[in-house]
This record gives sequence, structure tokens and C-alpha cells, in this order.
Amino acid sequence: MLDFDAERLAQFNAEITAKYEDLKAKNLNLNLTRGKPSSEQLDFGNALLSLPGENYIAADGTDCRNYGGVTGIADIRNLWAEVLGIPAENLYAGDASSLNIMFDLISWSYIFGNNDSERPWKDEEKVKWICPVPGYDRHFTITEHLGFEMITVPMTDEGPDMDAVRELAADPQVKGMWTVPVFGNPTGITFSEATCRALAEMETGAPDFRIVWDNAYAVHTLTDEFPVVYNVLDFAKEAGNPNRFWFMSSTSKITQAGAGVSFFASSKENLDWYASHANVRGIGPNKINQLAHAQFFHDAEGVRIQMRKHAGSLAPKFQRVLEILDERLSEYGVATWTKPKGGYFISLDVVDGTAARVVQLAKEAGIALTGAGSSFPLHKDPNNRNIRLAPSLPPVEELEVAMDGVATCVLLAACEKALEA
Amino acid sequence: MLDFDAERLAQFNAEITAKYEDLKAKNLNLNLTRGKPSSEQLDFGNALLSLPGENYIAADGTDCRNYGGVTGIADIRNLWAEVLGIPAENLYAGDASSLNIMFDLISWSYIFGNNDSERPWKDEEKVKWICPVPGYDRHFTITEHLGFEMITVPMTDEGPDMDAVRELAADPQVKGMWTVPVFGNPTGITFSEATCRALAEMETGAPDFRIVWDNAYAVHTLTDEFPVVYNVLDFAKEAGNPNRFWFMSSTSKITQAGAGVSFFASSKENLDWYASHANVRGIGPNKINQLAHAQFFHDAEGVRIQMRKHAGSLAPKFQRVLEILDERLSEYGVATWTKPKGGYFISLDVVDGTAARVVQLAKEAGIALTGAGSSFPLHKDPNNRNIRLAPSLPPVEELEVAMDGVATCVLLAACEKALEA
Repeated sequence: MLDFDAERLAQFNAEITAKYEDLKAKNLNLNLTRGKPSSEQLDFGNALLSLPGENYIAADGTDCRNYGGVTGIADIRNLWAEVLGIPAENLYAGDASSLNIMFDLISWSYIFGNNDSERPWKDEEKVKWICPVPGYDRHFTITEHLGFEMITVPMTDEGPDMDAVRELAADPQVKGMWTVPVFGNPTGITFSEATCRALAEMETGAPDFRIVWDNAYAVHTLTDEFPVVYNVLDFAKEAGNPNRFWFMSSTSKITQAGAGVSFFASSKENLDWYASHANVRGIGPNKINQLAHAQFFHDAEGVRIQMRKHAGSLAPKFQRVLEILDERLSEYGVATWTKPKGGYFISLDVVDGTAARVVQLAKEAGIALTGAGSSFPLHKDPNNRNIRLAPSLPPVEELEVAMDGVATCVLLAACEKALEA
Repeated sequence: MLDFDAERLAQFNAEITAKYEDLKAKNLNLNLTRGKPSSEQLDFGNALLSLPGENYIAADGTDCRNYGGVTGIADIRNLWAEVLGIPAENLYAGDASSLNIMFDLISWSYIFGNNDSERPWKDEEKVKWICPVPGYDRHFTITEHLGFEMITVPMTDEGPDMDAVRELAADPQVKGMWTVPVFGNPTGITFSEATCRALAEMETGAPDFRIVWDNAYAVHTLTDEFPVVYNVLDFAKEAGNPNRFWFMSSTSKITQAGAGVSFFASSKENLDWYASHANVRGIGPNKINQLAHAQFFHDAEGVRIQMRKHAGSLAPKFQRVLEILDERLSEYGVATWTKPKGGYFISLDVVDGTAARVVQLAKEAGIALTGAGSSFPLHKDPNNRNIRLAPSLPPVEELEVAMDGVATCVLLAACEKALEA
């Protein structure tokens, strides 16, 4: 918080207002909203676009062109099982989007109940859901859409505050929880082993409680090191809660964002329940695209090779954002931000009560930021302070201009706030 | 029905029993159950398996590799709109399976109600559904899964018996109806224009009544002629029922069965309602596969060229099946069958009460037939007489052996029945 005397504050306000007017005069049209890979990153997967060619037969002899196979083909299941360190028999491969599978899992629990339900969730008096914040907006939109009551839990450096989670989970009306356990959206936080085990072991009031383990960034490092992917299915089994996790993964930010392969890992019982509905919904996922992916990667090391290319493209962008935030903001104490080692986002906390104003100022200067509050259920950030920055899509030069502008907006909003006081 | 005197019947029974024993001695392992394209047919689409290559930008500049776009890309929507004779603005392109979209439409109506519903279908005392029979088993499985009461309506040569349909549709608990309007599964019947108009115009008790217009075989001719695809969206709009039809289409039996593109055509209001839920479920369909399909076909004539190849492969198989049925069965009056001009199936009606026995006899002789009753809701054929034959998958030589065997089984079951009497 700006800690200036009145004179200094007025002077600073004049300086930063002038800077903001200069910024507006540039008539920018820049966008930091989207957690999308850049064109350069998508190029890393271009070999896929000519696969599988004439090699359309899977290793077990399946003609991938024809109908059938709710589990996905063994070729990609085996490969991805190695990537995640999970047995292939516990892993289904799907179409492009794991979000689709999450929606289906929850909506089918709503209509039919899941394999541990006493009744369909639609017939419960109330369904509540644990939402660590800040979190992924599209997660919260699903549970909002189904009318669940979303209860927020703060994040620590090791994952969600487990005392709060344990207390909430004891309520039988609490049916589940959203998580992004590795390089979380938008915090970049990776859950510690202790947190993973605690989530696997905790008691829950509802027998059909589920944790959506959206491991969307399991291999999405910005450094030379890959994170440990804990086999929470094993942790849960050991703790006597074998059906606790719906473990999601996908190649969306590895190959083609909109044309990859999704994965759903879980206990056999959970997978059987899923298949009992998925087999009514349709005739199985696109096996051709799965085979193309298996051919493209060759093996788990092929996935890591691909991710090192992404890191080479993304890391300089993240570094420049962090440098600009540091250069422009650190001396004033008006903001804090995460320094992620992976994932797609930087989470920026500005002066309380000013996030929406920062986004508005930026918009008026031609810089699109993700809406304030978008990382919270119902888009309500109780402190109006969190802004999600997505550095992946723009080229570095644009990113620099945009971030310098954002810093100006953060300072101007802080000034305005300080002048009010 | 076998119309022999006792002596002749005993003699015939001896002959046909001997024939059946010969059949069993062959230890066959043949399969007529699956409405899948053959390997030869799938080959017609092999050029797709190397597309789109480096040409991944849609005509409007969209990078098809990245996220986004619930409607699908204009390239394939425009092309398919021409194939169906429907404006592209009324047509969304999706992932591989239109069955998936049908399930979503119905399950979302169940959870949320559709755009004309007074309440979600889950909150209705009872939901009933009109099921013309024989029909497509996977349709009936969806409405069974959601607990709807399925009411059957007989088929005429022009489509479902409209007097029966009108009477049922007047009931406010009747929320919808399954149809396969062109080259129906399994009958091969194509709805006449009068039937199409009558369905568009009829009054319904429920304001949110929907006809699932599963036009799965719209271009799947076995002759040189393509059927007229009536624009029922227009018929319905003219009649003041603009939201009546959920019109489905797909390339599943045109390019790759399990890796094609599906389509959903409807009124703007219906599409908006669909998008309001589909946008929560995910981030849009696989645009790369859509672009590959647009490149593969070039234009609507490209689709017709492709379908002529399929006809060249399928027509001789259908012809042999019909010849064998004629040669072996026509003189005895024990069966009738359809002579379709398109689609994937021949519908065989055997002596009442013997369909299950025919399927059992065939199974014991190593010939797998679709289960008796599978074309009826809950797999219950009230007359136990209908058998769905799927000639597409096996090579002609296998098909001949299998059909000759089936004819023997039909005759033996008819003999057994006659001997009982």
C-alpha cells in the first residue's frame, strides 16, 4: 500500500496519471486474458497434423477408423500411464477435452448418482462443493451451472488449507472439491505430498464425495525439472478411500490445444460407473487422434522432449512479466505476485479493493485483462484484489508493452485509493 | 407361414434339420450384427488421415489448432449446409458422434429444461417418448437410461403412423420422439414429404416437445439417386413450431466411422440454448478434424462422389442378401423383408414367435445375429418376429455363407413352430 505523505502522494499521482495518459495515447490493442498456447508453441505439434497417415491400426490390431472402444486405445493409454505413473488399466483416453469429462462426471452424478451415492445428487436437499481460491473459472462455472453451493477455501503454499477442507468435508452435503494439484490455475502452486495424502485420507461426511483432480499442468514445467506426479489413486486406496479421486489429464497444452487427447484415471469401480453412462452417450472417443498422438510422442520421454520445447518458449515470457512487475511495482508495496515454476498463469494481487479498477483502466488503455474476480466462484473476489495474468499467447514485445501498461494501471488505481483515504 | 400337410411338414423338417446339422458341422464364426462400414469402405476416407497437414488455418483466419468455437468452423458448416440444404447459420459442427449431441440435448432438457420448458424434465411427474418401431437401439437406450416411458408407434411405408403419433403427441407428458427419417434403421423406410410436414405441423400437448431428427443416412444411397432431404426446419417454422426439430447428421459412415464430424441443425433459439450448456461443458469441438474434412470433401459434390464409392461397395452385398433370402425363403411364406434403397440394414420379419429361436439357432451354428427385439424399446418385440441384418462389414463370400445359414435357421424355426401346432 502506498505509504506516502500527502505531498508525495499528490506528486506521484501526477506522475502516474501522466504516464497513464501516454499509455492511452498509444491506442493499444493487446490481450492478456487467454491461457492459450502461442502459435510458436502450437508449431511444436505440427507433425501430428499429418498423422496417422496410412498407419491406422493400433498395436492390438484395432482398426482405429471404425466404431467402438469406450476406454480409448491401449497405445496411448500405456504411454500416458507411464507419463503419470499410473497403471494403464486405471486410465481411459477420451476426446480432446478433459473439461467435457469433468462436466459429464458431475452431471451424471446429478442425474443418476455415482457409484457410491445413496441417491442422485438432484434428489439431495442441497449439494455443496469445496472451491480452493483463487482457482479455475471454468471449474466454478460447472458447479454454478448445476446450482451447487460453492464454499471457498484459501490456498497455502502447499495447496488448499487442509484444516478448512477437513471441516467442510465432514458435512454430508459436501459432495466434492475442485483442485488443480500441479502448477495450479492461476496460482502456480503445487500441492505437497502431505496435502495429497491428507486429501486421500481425510474423512468425508458423504460416502460419494469426489475430488476432481484436474492435473492439467502435470508436465508443464518452466524449468529443467519436472514436478513429481503423486499417485493419489494409490494414496486413496491405501487409506481405504479407493474411489475418492477423479484424476484428469490432457494433451491440450502439449500438442494442439483444441484437438488433443484427454485422460480420466480412477479406480476400476469409478471407471466402470463412468463407462456405464458413457456407453449410452456414444460409441467411444476418436481413436484416430489417439493413435496419431501415440505415434507423435513415441514414448513418455517424447512427452518430456515436447514439454522442454514449450518451456523454452514460455519461460522467457514469464521472466519478462516478473521482471517488469519487479521493476515497476516492488518499491511501492502495492502488489504481490506469484513466481510460478510451471503452468500458464501469474496471479497478481493488487491493493485491496482496486482489482476491478485496474482491469477497467487497462481496458480503457486497450489492454484486455481477465475480469477481476474471475478466479473466484460467481466471479466474486471478496477482497477485489486478484488479477490473473496469462503471458503465453502474445509475442514477447507485445507482452512487455502490455505488462508495463498493467503496472501503470496498478499504480494509478493504488494512488486513487490512497487519495480517497 | 408353412402351409404343409402333416406328411409334407415332417419330410420338410427332416430335410431342413439335416441342412442345419451340415451348417453346424462347418464350425463357422461369422458376424452380421454390426452396422459398421467395412475396411474397404473405410479406405475411401484414407486421404483424411494425413490432413490437414500444414494447412491448419480456416478460411476466416481461425487457427484450428487452438482453443475455442462452440459452433464449429465455417469451412465445414458451409459445406455441410449445402449437403443438407439448410442455412449454415442453423448448423453447428461438432466432434465425431451425433449420438453424443442427442444424449446431451436430452439429458440437459432433463436437468435444466429446454428453451421452451416450463420446468426441467426431471421435475415432471412423468416423461413419455414416442418410439416408432422397429427403430435404432441406441436411441431407445438413451430414453430408457433416463427413465422415460417409451411408447411405440408402427411404421408405414411413408414413416411412422401419423394418426397414432398425433394422438400421442397431444399428451403433455409426451416430450419427444425418435426418428431416422431417411433410410431408417433398420427398416430402410424414408419419410414422405407429407409425413415430414405432418410432423412439423402437428399440435403437441407439451410446449417443449422435440423431434430428434436423426438424419444419419441422408446421403447413404445404394443406387444412383440421392434422396430428397426435406428442410423440416423450414416446414416447422412455417407451421409456427420453429423449435420442433433437433436435426442431426454426421460423417460417421461417410469418412471414418469413429473419427468423423457430427452436425446439429436447428432454430437459432434451440442452438443458443444448446450453446448455453455446451459452453459450460467445454471449449468447443475438434476444429482440426473439421478442417481436415472440409479439405477432404472440397464441396458438396465431393460428398456425393464419396457416397457413390460406398454404394459401389455396399450395393452388391445388399443384393446378394436379398437374392439369398428370395431363393431360400420366398416360396415358403415364412418371412418378409425390406428391400432398402439406402442405409445400412435389412429388416427381416420371420414367423411370429420365432425370432429369438432363429437367433439362437444361428448362434449355435456360429453366426452372430443382432439379438431378437433389439430394434424395440427395452428389447421387447411384442411379436418376437423382427431380426436386423447388417450386411456392410463382412466380405461378400462370408456374407453369402452367413445368409444361407440364416435362411436355414429361419426355416427350421418355422418348422418347429408348425410342428407344435
